[in-house]
Amino acid sequence: MNASRFDIGLMQLNKIDGEAGEKVIASLQEICPDLAKNIIEFGFGDIYSRPELDLKSREIAAVAALTALGNCQPQLAVHLNAALNVGCSETEIKEVILQMAGYAEFPAAINGMFAFKQVLEERSGNH
Amino acid sequence: MNASRFDIGLMQLNKIDGEAGEKVIASLQEICPDLAKNIIEFGFGDIYSRPELDLKSREIAAVAALTALGNCQPQLAVHLNAALNVGCSETEIKEVILQMAGYAEFPAAINGMFAFKQVLEERSGNH
Amino acid sequence: MNASRFDIGLMQLNKIDGEAGEKVIASLQEICPDLAKNIIEFGFGDIYSRPELDLKSREIAAVAALTALGNCQPQLAVHLNAALNVGCSETEIKEVILQMAGYAEFPAAINGMFAFKQVLEERSGNH
Amino acid sequence: MNASRFDIGLMQLNKIDGEAGEKVIASLQEICPDLAKNIIEFGFGDIYSRPELDLKSREIAAVAALTALGNCQPQLAVHLNAALNVGCSETEIKEVILQMAGYAEFPAAINGMFAFKQVLEERSGNH
Amino acid sequence: MNASRFDIGLMQLNKIDGEAGEKVIASLQEICPDLAKNIIEFGFGDIYSRPELDLKSREIAAVAALTALGNCQPQLAVHLNAALNVGCSETEIKEVILQMAGYAEFPAAINGMFAFKQVLEERSGNH
Amino acid sequence: MNASRFDIGLMQLNKIDGEAGEKVIASLQEICPDLAKNIIEFGFGDIYSRPELDLKSREIAAVAALTALGNCQPQLAVHLNAALNVGCSETEIKEVILQMAGYAEFPAAINGMFAFKQVLEERSGNH
Repeated sequence: MNASRFDIGLMQLNKIDGEAGEKVIASLQEICPDLAKNIIEFGFGDIYSRPELDLKSREIAAVAALTALGNCQPQLAVHLNAALNVGCSETEIKEVILQMAGYAEFPAAINGMFAFKQVLEERSGNH
Repeated sequence: MNASRFDIGLMQLNKIDGEAGEKVIASLQEICPDLAKNIIEFGFGDIYSRPELDLKSREIAAVAALTALGNCQPQLAVHLNAALNVGCSETEIKEVILQMAGYAEFPAAINGMFAFKQVLEERSGNH
Repeated sequence: MNASRFDIGLMQLNKIDGEAGEKVIASLQEICPDLAKNIIEFGFGDIYSRPELDLKSREIAAVAALTALGNCQPQLAVHLNAALNVGCSETEIKEVILQMAGYAEFPAAINGMFAFKQVLEERSGNH
Repeated sequence: MNASRFDIGLMQLNKIDGEAGEKVIASLQEICPDLAKNIIEFGFGDIYSRPELDLKSREIAAVAALTALGNCQPQLAVHLNAALNVGCSETEIKEVILQMAGYAEFPAAINGMFAFKQVLEERSGNH
Repeated sequence: MNASRFDIGLMQLNKIDGEAGEKVIASLQEICPDLAKNIIEFGFGDIYSRPELDLKSREIAAVAALTALGNCQPQLAVHLNAALNVGCSETEIKEVILQMAGYAEFPAAINGMFAFKQVLEERSGNH
Repeated sequence: MNASRFDIGLMQLNKIDGEAGEKVIASLQEICPDLAKNIIEFGFGDIYSRPELDLKSREIAAVAALTALGNCQPQLAVHLNAALNVGCSETEIKEVILQMAGYAEFPAAINGMFAFKQVLEERSGNH
């Protein structure tokens, strides 16, 4: 049922992205509720809830891809938070970004690292 | 010393990419030995040999980034092999590629999956 | 129900992509049935079946995006066929590709045009 | 004659992009008048004035491509306005952006939707 | 006059790209003569014939951009030939591609280098 | 020795990027000193210090690639400054950016030109 995909997705979203994810979804609701629904149902309900890969590996993959693509800074920030939320250490996340200097481009790695710096500052400001 | 970065890198390259990596390096030697040297020294000596991230996580990151970028099919094939070599299961690798449908583009995920299909066929043909 | 999203999606896929789409799906079934299922359910069931945009406009958008991205040639070929299937004229499709010379890159427009040339040759060979 | 390509282009630019386009051109004039001239002559005089595709379809193609590319936010904003100017409905534009979740990347669709939200707010603020 | 932009462009195209460029243009003529015309008039008549930058620097810029973008292999091959035609040495061209390992991605540099290897083999086979 | 690659790299960085480069490196030091070290050692020590290509040609290649990629605006700004520092004229740099309208995308050329406008304003403000 759709309801169930949505409910499973919302639960996953909250577990992974916390407040940052909720804010993105809330903001999308105003302009295009169906895109918000698709992200929750498909992205989090269908994909992220699959048991084939642990959440830590999923966030390593997400941080790697978004750092490499280099044109999705807001989503990268969400997933840098998510990576910390699901148990990646600061060192591991920095290392994934650093590794991207060899697969994507140095500028992508630099911009990814500055994005992480800001995420860490925001999180430490919250405590 | 340079020698040492090269030696460490070559050892890592052999461990991770096996024959596929060696072939790329040999082919580069003919046209631009310095690029081959840089890949071994910087990519494998400086980056891949760092203890901050285990090799399995590194290959998850590499497969995610190369699938998402979508324009490096030869390198993706090398790293799909590498991911299997360092202990990722077939299921985990498929799952990383599948997840890219949500972060990169569906076409990138489709092309990544077909690349993996070919890698699996080549490997099963070798046995 | 999932069944229903899948059935609606399959019907849309057949209407739009015909044999070419079926072949991609069949080929994906062997390596990752869940990716095939996601494409049918999400791509064609959830998105393409929405009444908010006519199919001709959808294919103009798909041809434009895939030409511009420039790294999804197999998918571009599928959608060039689809665009013809849903009523775009040859002239209109060439014009969308030509316009991409101003939004994406000249090389992308050139490669898109050659892809269309091949699609037209294959279709005329079938009759 | 060059004059004529320029005049035709300027007329098209005004019809399609209105004030937003004029501002971009004026700003380019200061730093590189030849780039401004090329955009008007080639982009609007040579391409946009061709009768082979209606303006509404052209803007659907432009919005799709710029959303998918994901690294041209200022130009996307200009063309979201242009799409409204030449007769696309809000619903149709949202649907093109939403469809990009399947051809480009979810983050590109999300960022495209937020860009459209801002365009709508600016336009409603002008009335 | 259009005629003159076309004539100037054709002369530039022949000087820079030689036979390789002519073949691309001839092939485009069959499917979309207007795209061929635009490339000659705009690309070679308007841009390449400007005296503000010498042809050698222009080809360095073209090889750098096409290597970095990584999804325009046919055009990269044309411009690797062009770079040799206008006086870049083999060493300089390799160096531009090598430098891209730091600005674009290692895979882009590797694929660019292999493209150059093939160009050199084809040229030596012609003599 | 590593020390030497670092020293050579730092000297090159200072010569080419001046204060702008130093600021980037200083900022990276806080979050990931190893990335800063890699950029200096590999980017500037290994690549930029090679005699195979003059610095002016290197900066033409860097400006072309970063303009074309379109998603590394901070690095583009650094290299627009660097291009001026190593002897490119304003006219030559504008011309490289303008040429990108034919190899990358018009939006990339437009955004590159605006980035250069800002660099020129900042530099004239400093005197």
